[in-house]
Amino acid sequence: MNNAEFRTHAHALADWMADYLESIEARRVTPAVAPGDLRRALPAEAPEGAEPFDAIWRDFESLVMPGMTHWQHPGWMAYFPGNASPPAVLGEMVAAVLATNVMSWQTAPAATELEQVTLDWLRRLVGLPDGFTGVIQDTASTSTLVALLSARERATGGAFGREGAAAGEAPRLVAYASAEAHSSVPKAARLAGFGEDRLRRVPVDHRFALRADELGRMMDADRAAGLIPACVVATAGTTNSTAVDPVAAVAELCERHGAWLHVDAAYAGTAAICPEFRWVLDGCGRADSLVFNPHKWMLVNFDCSTYFVRDVRHLTATFGTTPAYLRGAYDEEVANYRDWGIPLGRRFRALKLWFVLRSHGAEGIREHVRRTIGQARRLAAGAAAEPGWHVVAPAELGLVCLRFQPDGMDDAAADELNRRALAAVNAAGRYHLTGTILGGRQVIRVALGGRLTEERHVEGVWGELRGAVSGER
Amino acid sequence: MNNAEFRTHAHALADWMADYLESIEARRVTPAVAPGDLRRALPAEAPEGAEPFDAIWRDFESLVMPGMTHWQHPGWMAYFPGNASPPAVLGEMVAAVLATNVMSWQTAPAATELEQVTLDWLRRLVGLPDGFTGVIQDTASTSTLVALLSARERATGGAFGREGAAAGEAPRLVAYASAEAHSSVPKAARLAGFGEDRLRRVPVDHRFALRADELGRMMDADRAAGLIPACVVATAGTTNSTAVDPVAAVAELCERHGAWLHVDAAYAGTAAICPEFRWVLDGCGRADSLVFNPHKWMLVNFDCSTYFVRDVRHLTATFGTTPAYLRGAYDEEVANYRDWGIPLGRRFRALKLWFVLRSHGAEGIREHVRRTIGQARRLAAGAAAEPGWHVVAPAELGLVCLRFQPDGMDDAAADELNRRALAAVNAAGRYHLTGTILGGRQVIRVALGGRLTEERHVEGVWGELRGAVSGER
Repeated sequence: MNNAEFRTHAHALADWMADYLESIEARRVTPAVAPGDLRRALPAEAPEGAEPFDAIWRDFESLVMPGMTHWQHPGWMAYFPGNASPPAVLGEMVAAVLATNVMSWQTAPAATELEQVTLDWLRRLVGLPDGFTGVIQDTASTSTLVALLSARERATGGAFGREGAAAGEAPRLVAYASAEAHSSVPKAARLAGFGEDRLRRVPVDHRFALRADELGRMMDADRAAGLIPACVVATAGTTNSTAVDPVAAVAELCERHGAWLHVDAAYAGTAAICPEFRWVLDGCGRADSLVFNPHKWMLVNFDCSTYFVRDVRHLTATFGTTPAYLRGAYDEEVANYRDWGIPLGRRFRALKLWFVLRSHGAEGIREHVRRTIGQARRLAAGAAAEPGWHVVAPAELGLVCLRFQPDGMDDAAADELNRRALAAVNAAGRYHLTGTILGGRQVIRVALGGRLTEERHVEGVWGELRGAVSGER
Repeated sequence: MNNAEFRTHAHALADWMADYLESIEARRVTPAVAPGDLRRALPAEAPEGAEPFDAIWRDFESLVMPGMTHWQHPGWMAYFPGNASPPAVLGEMVAAVLATNVMSWQTAPAATELEQVTLDWLRRLVGLPDGFTGVIQDTASTSTLVALLSARERATGGAFGREGAAAGEAPRLVAYASAEAHSSVPKAARLAGFGEDRLRRVPVDHRFALRADELGRMMDADRAAGLIPACVVATAGTTNSTAVDPVAAVAELCERHGAWLHVDAAYAGTAAICPEFRWVLDGCGRADSLVFNPHKWMLVNFDCSTYFVRDVRHLTATFGTTPAYLRGAYDEEVANYRDWGIPLGRRFRALKLWFVLRSHGAEGIREHVRRTIGQARRLAAGAAAEPGWHVVAPAELGLVCLRFQPDGMDDAAADELNRRALAAVNAAGRYHLTGTILGGRQVIRVALGGRLTEERHVEGVWGELRGAVSGER
């Protein structure tokens, strides 16, 4: 593809992208496909010769698109939102053609410094204190692993990294997180060498938030048994129900035990940009690290997970490496982000973040957060007023956890009915919801926060949910 | 930014992107900037109100672009190439607007299956046997960490992940890699809990390739000392000099000891698409895992690092997690890529790979590889014929390692002279080279493989290098 052809196709795609966003609502939000549909439609081997882009594009439209889910569809209310927004897409375009590798200052000076600047903007916007330093990671899962690895090294004075499991204190490390913490926490405990069994799951209260009294008892007991409480992962906004752990009380315990405090605010952190929701990060100024994902609720394309750390030397001590072929002239005075995480190579992700923060402005993002939370509160109020429906967790942010269980229906029957209702709404193709298990029971999650989701869509999904259980009460 | 504005700006960027590629050679390949230049030019806080894209773009052009390096510039011959190509950029555009999260089949059926299909195309193109399964990771660093974690779990029957360093065999694990292995290998040994001290660095031969006899002795000695040789990382194409370790001989030793064999073919793997260079992966069919980076030499935008594994169950055993909120209807029969690596969320990276493989065709990529290697061989031949210049490692692929040291010049003086020559060429701004230390001495690396690099650029850099040392012999 020569440059003139590239220009032509890029213009065609510019229109296709705008058309896609304009007409997205006409599509099913999820496709009616079965495993293997696309695999069977494609050849087993790559072509030997070059193919014209028009032919490739025809296959994309006729074979790939029919099997795509539409995360930007206004009816996508599954998982958590994964918002793109126009300025973020423009940022991805520019980053793609520059194809700069932001591994070191020297390999990408302006890209490195734009990351420093925009991460500091974000830090101020969500109210983290001076001294915290940010870096873009791919996901909150990776960020939490980064935190656990840092905690492990701090607790062993670097011995775990040097000597591995043979280090004297290595077998005595313990980590803690609530029973409602995200699956990435046990996964990180497994990968970071704490061991999944050495992650204590702390009981939660009636609001599904970590019980600090229980955590304190567990840490004391471990200490008394000769173990080392090395890390606590608190959650600000759990995946199941957006429960917010009492971070200040947890920080108190961490300080007493010298444990690393990591806060997983992947979803909820964005809300802290609004003064009235700043409470979601209460106490987080005392954390050692915190992650939140602008790629969820802040209108920045995936991937853009922002990891903030109180003392950046724990990152460079854990992840730093400077072989001869990577040395630069300014290594002592610059940020070399390769030393701040797992991968060496890194995309130019700060550009889309900069475009989004300036294009929307802080007020534009606050408006999006407020609109989302308003939608969720109206849905929750409507459901609470409807016979048989229960709002099973506080709906204080953008997620509403619903369950239909009329008086007299037993729990197992209600589980089955809620699963059927969820499947029925999804099968209709206008909305996409996911469920979870909360307090041992099947729950339907309605995750608001999509950029294109309007009040009528919230009313629409609520109508479909009621319809799906009608005749069952 | 409404949709009409987005359309307008996307068209403007389509032209900007094409113009950028067309005129890239008129730019300095690296900027003349100092640390802090961009930071000082930007405000300390994000704007409160929305800003028009035109204003943001003006700042991008006037403040950010002057501090960018140009990895796509034909004079970029530093590190290894990080190629973008037009069809890959188009793939990034489409992926950006779809903003699909490819964490599970259910969240992205067609994107998951396109990854399965294109990775199998790649597997066949580079000659890995049936049975190997591929997945896209972000970087080779991450892929190597994935391999070491998998090796650790296999060697301990999953006990390391469950019990951490307290697992009985955990403190006895040992890993091996050549003295020339990439810095990501000791970093992975540190992070994966082997301990950096438990990574044995195996001596290399005169071609900078791992000595299998030394490796065998080290493994035997460790075994005799009660340790467990759990993993060997062999390199096919080192960063310093593209040396290729004797993988078949290493595989023999790994099979004898039950050690995991991971092959880091990050750069050189692409060459295996040509029958005459297939030898770079000789023996790799006996590996447990292998990584190579289409985002280096195969014209696919970063990030696209492809990790191949012989038995995919080691991935799911090490990285799998299925909480209630992620369960899908087809989990038993589909690939859920969240279980094949560290992050949960994943971009739709298979699209650009598919676009590139079809747009160039296998023959187009072979042509690019052959052209590159031809350039390198001509440069190496020219340098070998030039008094005072030495080609200090076999230039069999796209990298030429040069050193200027006339008869009678002592080693330290030559080190200093080569550093000065490197700095002089870089300062001129037409070419960008990096150096390294090879066999203890300063070397100048000329890394070919850029899509836009033509013979005249190779002649140009060679002229500048000769000029930089003229008068010194």
